[in-house]
Amino acid sequence: MRTVTFLPSYRKIDIERGKTILDAAQNAGLNMNVVCGGQGKCGKCIVYIQSGKTEFDRQKYLRFFTEEELAKGACLACQTTVQGDLQVFIPESSLIQEQKILIEHRDQKIDLRPSVRKFYVELQPPTLADPSPDLTRLLWGIQKNGGPAAEKIYVPLEVMREIPAILRHSDWKVTGTVGLVPGGYRLIDLQENDTAKRVYGAAVDLGSTTIVAYLWDLVEGKVVGVASNYNRQISCGEDILARVNYARKNGLVKLQSLAIESVNTALTTASDNAGIDREDIYEVVVAGNTVMTHMLLGIDPAYIIAEPYVPVVQRALSVAASRIGIACNRNCGLFAFPAVSDFIGGDIIADILACGMAGQEGVSLLIDIGTNFEVVLGNREWMFSCAGAAGPALEGGEVLFGMRANPGAIEKIVIDPETLIPSYSTINNLKPRGITGSGLIDLLAELFAACIIDRNGRIDTGIGNPRIRIGAHFPEYVVAWAKDTDINKDVVITENDIKNLIMSKASVHAACVTLMKEADVTRHDITAIYFAGAFGNYINKKNATIIGLIPEINPDQIRNIGNGAVTGANIALINRRERKTLDEIANRMAYIELNAEPSFMDEYTMSSFLPHTDLTLFPMVQKMLDACRIKRV
Amino acid sequence: MRTVTFLPSYRKIDIERGKTILDAAQNAGLNMNVVCGGQGKCGKCIVYIQSGKTEFDRQKYLRFFTEEELAKGACLACQTTVQGDLQVFIPESSLIQEQKILIEHRDQKIDLRPSVRKFYVELQPPTLADPSPDLTRLLWGIQKNGGPAAEKIYVPLEVMREIPAILRHSDWKVTGTVGLVPGGYRLIDLQENDTAKRVYGAAVDLGSTTIVAYLWDLVEGKVVGVASNYNRQISCGEDILARVNYARKNGLVKLQSLAIESVNTALTTASDNAGIDREDIYEVVVAGNTVMTHMLLGIDPAYIIAEPYVPVVQRALSVAASRIGIACNRNCGLFAFPAVSDFIGGDIIADILACGMAGQEGVSLLIDIGTNFEVVLGNREWMFSCAGAAGPALEGGEVLFGMRANPGAIEKIVIDPETLIPSYSTINNLKPRGITGSGLIDLLAELFAACIIDRNGRIDTGIGNPRIRIGAHFPEYVVAWAKDTDINKDVVITENDIKNLIMSKASVHAACVTLMKEADVTRHDITAIYFAGAFGNYINKKNATIIGLIPEINPDQIRNIGNGAVTGANIALINRRERKTLDEIANRMAYIELNAEPSFMDEYTMSSFLPHTDLTLFPMVQKMLDACRIKRV
Repeated sequence: MRTVTFLPSYRKIDIERGKTILDAAQNAGLNMNVVCGGQGKCGKCIVYIQSGKTEFDRQKYLRFFTEEELAKGACLACQTTVQGDLQVFIPESSLIQEQKILIEHRDQKIDLRPSVRKFYVELQPPTLADPSPDLTRLLWGIQKNGGPAAEKIYVPLEVMREIPAILRHSDWKVTGTVGLVPGGYRLIDLQENDTAKRVYGAAVDLGSTTIVAYLWDLVEGKVVGVASNYNRQISCGEDILARVNYARKNGLVKLQSLAIESVNTALTTASDNAGIDREDIYEVVVAGNTVMTHMLLGIDPAYIIAEPYVPVVQRALSVAASRIGIACNRNCGLFAFPAVSDFIGGDIIADILACGMAGQEGVSLLIDIGTNFEVVLGNREWMFSCAGAAGPALEGGEVLFGMRANPGAIEKIVIDPETLIPSYSTINNLKPRGITGSGLIDLLAELFAACIIDRNGRIDTGIGNPRIRIGAHFPEYVVAWAKDTDINKDVVITENDIKNLIMSKASVHAACVTLMKEADVTRHDITAIYFAGAFGNYINKKNATIIGLIPEINPDQIRNIGNGAVTGANIALINRRERKTLDEIANRMAYIELNAEPSFMDEYTMSSFLPHTDLTLFPMVQKMLDACRIKRV
Repeated sequence: MRTVTFLPSYRKIDIERGKTILDAAQNAGLNMNVVCGGQGKCGKCIVYIQSGKTEFDRQKYLRFFTEEELAKGACLACQTTVQGDLQVFIPESSLIQEQKILIEHRDQKIDLRPSVRKFYVELQPPTLADPSPDLTRLLWGIQKNGGPAAEKIYVPLEVMREIPAILRHSDWKVTGTVGLVPGGYRLIDLQENDTAKRVYGAAVDLGSTTIVAYLWDLVEGKVVGVASNYNRQISCGEDILARVNYARKNGLVKLQSLAIESVNTALTTASDNAGIDREDIYEVVVAGNTVMTHMLLGIDPAYIIAEPYVPVVQRALSVAASRIGIACNRNCGLFAFPAVSDFIGGDIIADILACGMAGQEGVSLLIDIGTNFEVVLGNREWMFSCAGAAGPALEGGEVLFGMRANPGAIEKIVIDPETLIPSYSTINNLKPRGITGSGLIDLLAELFAACIIDRNGRIDTGIGNPRIRIGAHFPEYVVAWAKDTDINKDVVITENDIKNLIMSKASVHAACVTLMKEADVTRHDITAIYFAGAFGNYINKKNATIIGLIPEINPDQIRNIGNGAVTGANIALINRRERKTLDEIANRMAYIELNAEPSFMDEYTMSSFLPHTDLTLFPMVQKMLDACRIKRV
């Protein structure tokens, strides 16, 4: 036995004299670059002998090295045998690298560890002296080139059948695609010649309204295309409930195929734009809510929406994408995020992955607001979640001039505390037509900060200002005069609108506090608040605190993570290890049924003020109010 | 913590006070019978408290136990909590048993450990307090009833989709079928109500001439049906070579479907006879030679038969039986035995499993003789194999009155050494029409023992006996006079027939010796010789030694294992652990190419005598010859 020490890692390995340095490196767990399978042809496995005795064919080396390099100890690891104890330096370029990728909204870089990899191998044709079977030859080639151990690679029958013809037709130069599956690996494809650079994957946010797809180059670790389109299921019902009822009456087939069509459209757009063949997409990761995921996979969602609200499946699922009609490589895998319950679906688990809270020591609060809201509180040890109806106010519904984030919608507002005149910005800078949810939060906070409304949300009609007036039914504040609008009407907010907004924000805040009580933490323990979802992306953090939508913490610790569902799907796509944590996250998360928590209603009542009945919970807002009072006085 | 000691095993486990005895038993690794999932309904988990404090609802127990039994400490493990340190006796009837099965031709009993098991579970319907998903509920129920851990069970999409309807339609009483797959388990079927007793499997010997299928009840561990029929591929060519050439010209589809049809016919016959629904067959194990296995699976065998003789695949394969058209349960698995090379196929690996030689310390010799022969030499540490052409003589070809084992064939012969008159028995006791291979071996040995032929196989025409005469071309011996036959011809054996027989037996013996030299063992090291195959089954062990077909060892150590292929398949079917060893056996076996071994021809020449040039290798035969000479003198 001889001892080989590899630098710069100082990894040591004992090996029989006469074995190659490549054997030693592989035994030491170093993934060397050996495209030719160790035949001394590709010249990729260059190492430098720093000390010790080796044997090699000098003549052969002149093709690869100058005299100067040879003097430095350069040699090919696959063609040099160990004769004595050695010190061997491996330059980084001779190792197969795992690349670093930056995903926005997450502090740490994500390693590129896709679950699918391609291996180009040049095999020796069989001879009477080496008549080993085609499969053995191929899998050994893949193993030698840094792939998984041959015996761990399962080969499906349809690929097996193609092996002999492809090997011989390509003159034994082929690219094998290996995917990770439970308990091992799978040879999912075999192609002629070198196609190793063509490995793509897609991360999909399967929303009930919109589908977003990111297309990744899984070799380079970069996004090559993005596409989004509406979920065509909308033709069977606007919301989830309507669609499940449609399925109950008419069967699931149409809804499933509409979901598949919608995903296929997004994938086609993204791959066409990037000039990529969809056959080269080997993996699709999908994050969607519980009902959408059931529908996509053709699993009956009927029992999710009626008492006792039972999904069929909660765990992460890996299925063959082609089995459900996703148009990618015929052996493309599809990974669907796990869910926790009827309301905490794969989209929320993706949010959690996106913000990274499940790996942090500090306690984080994650809030995803739409018509419904979901709140998750936790850290790397524990996690609580709940969901509820926020009412439509925060999305612009049940508010006189509320509207979705379409062109002409006011999305940001500041009110001058002296003149009480608002400044605002609209989407696409058009004349205003209404106010978005984020605009309404700004408006509520600014009205409160300017002391136009009190803690009950009542408008102080005693202030002598033309913008404050009694409207048809309620006191109101004029945000834009008719002449400045696109609709020839004064855009106003009424005391009734404000009441609805306060009810909505009170629900969210009460949910946060309920989870905090459950976990026995106070606002001081919370190191981060993450807003997820389209709405969260535009929210003004300070104003969200002023109105008491969220517990007061240092505003620098509040972050908008945007579309966390697609970000989480991206992370799970490019790093298979992150995927492993998901079931664990879902399993350890406790789901709190708010309607079954008596304290929730109490919290809701206390939260139905600006910002809250207990001002000591909002010291920053308290200070602002004090300043406001002083000014008024 | 309290300590519970289980009798009769004296297994101890520490457990929190208040947990049930069932919890303690499960933690201690004891598989208790809990059909109802521990709800106190089925009354199967009866144990007897021998000492220590417990708590239970006495009223509830009156349903299950008499006062007398209660006095003995009887209770249900699932309904009784641990309060103090306990001694608990578990009767065998409360445990889930692994049964013992005797497979003929193998010394040890084979445990019944099929790779497919069914679990009947009675689940609690979901409630608001327990809204866990259908899948979780089901898999936990299976786990509680002695099945694998819920998180290790993979659920294919088609089964997943059926879960919600089946659970509700059957009122939450279902039977789940769980199969072992690489890296875990798979829920392969879900049925309403209790079908747990209906688990069947088939072991198939896929011969190029005949297909034999054994149907097993995998719950009781017994054979319920056997069937055999011809391989319909015979319409595309009599032998393997002709069929591969047919496939080369016309494609593989027809040959594959004929193989499948042949297997399906055998399965249908066996299951119809046993009154079993083929839907309840969950596993098929197939042992066949390398070409037959390739054809069955639709893998091109063209490269096996031409230089350099390369199979596509050698390893054991697990595929979905329905994918290739085997008519069993739609989720039935098919396991195909691994091969070593072109000639050492899955049938030989099955022979090895059948005789058990790969687990023995002593060295065994396995011989499978047909037109070709295969020889394996080895023990639990090493193994050598070779194959060759025996010529048709041992199967009755190239011998004037040789014939297959059909009615009227002479299969056993004894010659009176005084009168030289033979006694024989024929198949079905009909008048003789010819002689089978085993009859020819008897004949050769008896002619030799009676000194009618010499060590060169020459007939001593000087003996004055009407049965010894000069025929049309060669000297010959009359086995049966025309009047006693069914063909109105004298049934004879000629000197030329004898020459052909000696050539055939010499090949086999030379192969044995070549392997023995390779492994550096002598006949004294050999503790067993196994004859496999139909031919081997009828062979007279002593006569095989007398003619020098095999090395001379104690005849008690020679065994006929009969159809080792189907026996091996049976073993692999009923015990999944035996299956795991197969790839390992195939991998560690060295294949010796006889044509490339110069010593083989020398051995062949030396073996072309009765029994061999070197009589010291056959001391028993030497003794017999001495006696013979004395008698003649």
